[in-house]
Amino acid sequence: MTELRVGLLGLGTIGTGVARILIEQKELISRRLGKQVRLVAAADKFLDRDRGIDFTGVRLCSDATEILAADDIDLVVELIGGYEPARTFVQTALENGKHVVTANKALIAKHGDELFPLAAANGLQIGFEAAVGGGIPCMKALREGLAANAIESVYGILNGTCNFILTKMEHEGLDYSEALSQAQALGYAEANPTFDVEGIDTAHKLSILAAMAFGSKIKFDEVYTEGISKITAADISATHEMGYRIKLLGIAKPHFDDKNEQVEMRVHPTLVPLTSQIAQVSDSYNAVQISGDFVEHTMYFGRGAGERPTASAVVADIMDITSGFPDGIAHLAPPMGFVESSRREIPTMPMADVVCEYYLRLMVKDQPGVIAAVTSILADHRISLEALVQKERHASNNVPIVMLTHETNEGNMQAAISRITGLAAVEDDVLILRKESAVA
Amino acid sequence: MTELRVGLLGLGTIGTGVARILIEQKELISRRLGKQVRLVAAADKFLDRDRGIDFTGVRLCSDATEILAADDIDLVVELIGGYEPARTFVQTALENGKHVVTANKALIAKHGDELFPLAAANGLQIGFEAAVGGGIPCMKALREGLAANAIESVYGILNGTCNFILTKMEHEGLDYSEALSQAQALGYAEANPTFDVEGIDTAHKLSILAAMAFGSKIKFDEVYTEGISKITAADISATHEMGYRIKLLGIAKPHFDDKNEQVEMRVHPTLVPLTSQIAQVSDSYNAVQISGDFVEHTMYFGRGAGERPTASAVVADIMDITSGFPDGIAHLAPPMGFVESSRREIPTMPMADVVCEYYLRLMVKDQPGVIAAVTSILADHRISLEALVQKERHASNNVPIVMLTHETNEGNMQAAISRITGLAAVEDDVLILRKESAVA
Repeated sequence: MTELRVGLLGLGTIGTGVARILIEQKELISRRLGKQVRLVAAADKFLDRDRGIDFTGVRLCSDATEILAADDIDLVVELIGGYEPARTFVQTALENGKHVVTANKALIAKHGDELFPLAAANGLQIGFEAAVGGGIPCMKALREGLAANAIESVYGILNGTCNFILTKMEHEGLDYSEALSQAQALGYAEANPTFDVEGIDTAHKLSILAAMAFGSKIKFDEVYTEGISKITAADISATHEMGYRIKLLGIAKPHFDDKNEQVEMRVHPTLVPLTSQIAQVSDSYNAVQISGDFVEHTMYFGRGAGERPTASAVVADIMDITSGFPDGIAHLAPPMGFVESSRREIPTMPMADVVCEYYLRLMVKDQPGVIAAVTSILADHRISLEALVQKERHASNNVPIVMLTHETNEGNMQAAISRITGLAAVEDDVLILRKESAVA
Repeated sequence: MTELRVGLLGLGTIGTGVARILIEQKELISRRLGKQVRLVAAADKFLDRDRGIDFTGVRLCSDATEILAADDIDLVVELIGGYEPARTFVQTALENGKHVVTANKALIAKHGDELFPLAAANGLQIGFEAAVGGGIPCMKALREGLAANAIESVYGILNGTCNFILTKMEHEGLDYSEALSQAQALGYAEANPTFDVEGIDTAHKLSILAAMAFGSKIKFDEVYTEGISKITAADISATHEMGYRIKLLGIAKPHFDDKNEQVEMRVHPTLVPLTSQIAQVSDSYNAVQISGDFVEHTMYFGRGAGERPTASAVVADIMDITSGFPDGIAHLAPPMGFVESSRREIPTMPMADVVCEYYLRLMVKDQPGVIAAVTSILADHRISLEALVQKERHASNNVPIVMLTHETNEGNMQAAISRITGLAAVEDDVLILRKESAVA
């Protein structure tokens, strides 16, 4: 029986999961494929740790370069994470004629556009299903399952830490910092949570999804990115009363017409209707909602992280590549969903041109005429209101006001907000959240 | 550029959608594949109808056999539906060396186990993504995306007509027959709705999913099947008050141990927790929830029917086959997710052995001792109650009682019900629904 030989870089959480599947599900894998997948070698700096796996017959190395150079390895799994040395390792693996599977979203978001052409030139495949949405086979859905569609929108809950924090805030009425502490205590958030809570992880994943959806280059640096740290328990309850739930979404939409091609990419806390499917995605679950011109709305839901779910996606990629091994690899769908030569530079839409509906939260002095002053500025900018709620006065004698607006572009909204912030009766900054009514 | 030539059997709703994609998205398809897909010919009895498509360059035939015999066709799309002549046409296409793509769940459920080996023997592929879940790429998810997992359960809302009716009943307090009339008026239900509302369509789809999940033969005839026609508005509201929503689910679970292998397959109205992801799937939407030993819960959501969504899935299959064309077809994952030679006979678990939680609705005479009599029969059978609610007395002087029970097997429950029905104070039949708490 044909056999594909795997070398594993990194025996951390996910690497351990991958080794576990390859060893424990050996028979299932060969029944499904009619071929064998064999774990030949694994490299990690800390080999002494007990991982609860019987590594009999697997070569354990403390140096990754042994695996990159080995003659008896057909495919390298990179599970080190971060930019370097992951990038150099993947490049070396490809140069040495080895397929690559990785769960590293930072690497693909930043260096994918160098690595994919290198793989294509060498007749090799790069699998990265696990980089976005953890165990959810959403890359495959977008690249293959929806391949007949012009994609119209992508909405993703792509970071389990943020989703867990927002769910805790809602269910227990906690403020952000309390919910973050709980997430940290439970191991859902890192000691330094910036990468997750400020939306950077989501932006990595969104930039990959957008490039796959629209056949563009990956433009991580151009994703507009805001995190969840400014959200308060009061925002959660005020939006809930108005029929919405706050989710950190990655959003990508194409703006293609005869004259112009642009892609809109943004990551920010977003109000979604309470009755929508995506609003139900709670705790650390992830979901990706993809709409196409023929398929309409679809959604993919599951675990976005964790040893076992992420390993499930990594091994699915290994099995895909094995199904075409040793020849026929070129017959798989292109990694980014479009043949390399047809992927093109598509400019990112400037955030100022992006059209949204808005939620605004202001703290104003309790005196006559303030609401009139605020709403007349909005009227000047032709921004119309869907709802305005004045809440109870705070101890400080200030009054919180929340508003929902109809659509306007971001530049216009920012100009209005800057005038509103300048009013003497307006205290502090205005919190701006965006709303998406078109989610399913 | 390599080209795959398509012949289409049937220009009804879905066939029209497929023709539309192949013609309108020609450029997108070749950018994604690096190959061309060309609609060469289409057959239909009614060629005069205006379908709003420019068929220039497409050979239109009134006789399907012209397409089956044509030298210039590599792949036949069967969109006629039903058992015959679809089965004969697909068989002839395979014998003539043509790949097949179909949306015909009845055909696959009933004759798949003859057709797959024929395709494999001829080095050909059968695509049937559109047969289950319409536009949702759930076959691909199960066969490829979750290939590293032993599948632990499949729960599907697989019939849009039933889901539409149940949603209408809940939202508007309608009884079944009123909601059915609305569905018929809107074109969501056929004049003769038996196939949909009695669960047969769902059973077709479930039998395919179960075989793919567990590597067994397709056993449509052995699926336990109940429809939704006995549900009343009162059941919808009573279950809602207890925290549940009624959905028509197809359910498949493996029972594999060292001694025994059995697969549980059943279609029936099912109580699912209101807070679950699957409970949010409303109107005519479909969803498939698949759990695996590594990936945990996943769910796939979208349109289960309709011209454009179903055509999206058909063309995805055509593109998959094109990616491996003209050689390399054997490198795709096997149609049923396991290589043909490893698929085996696995007995279906007798319904009497299936363990469930239950919802019971009885109508009893308003007299002392009735509840004691009913509950003591349940106690005799060691069936314990999770909840019991006595509702207001009807005009008839009868009192409805609803109960939720903890787990027991179906045989035991039926024995208890048969004794309860025999009580003089119990009017009419007892309605039995089943509950699944393990859905996500």
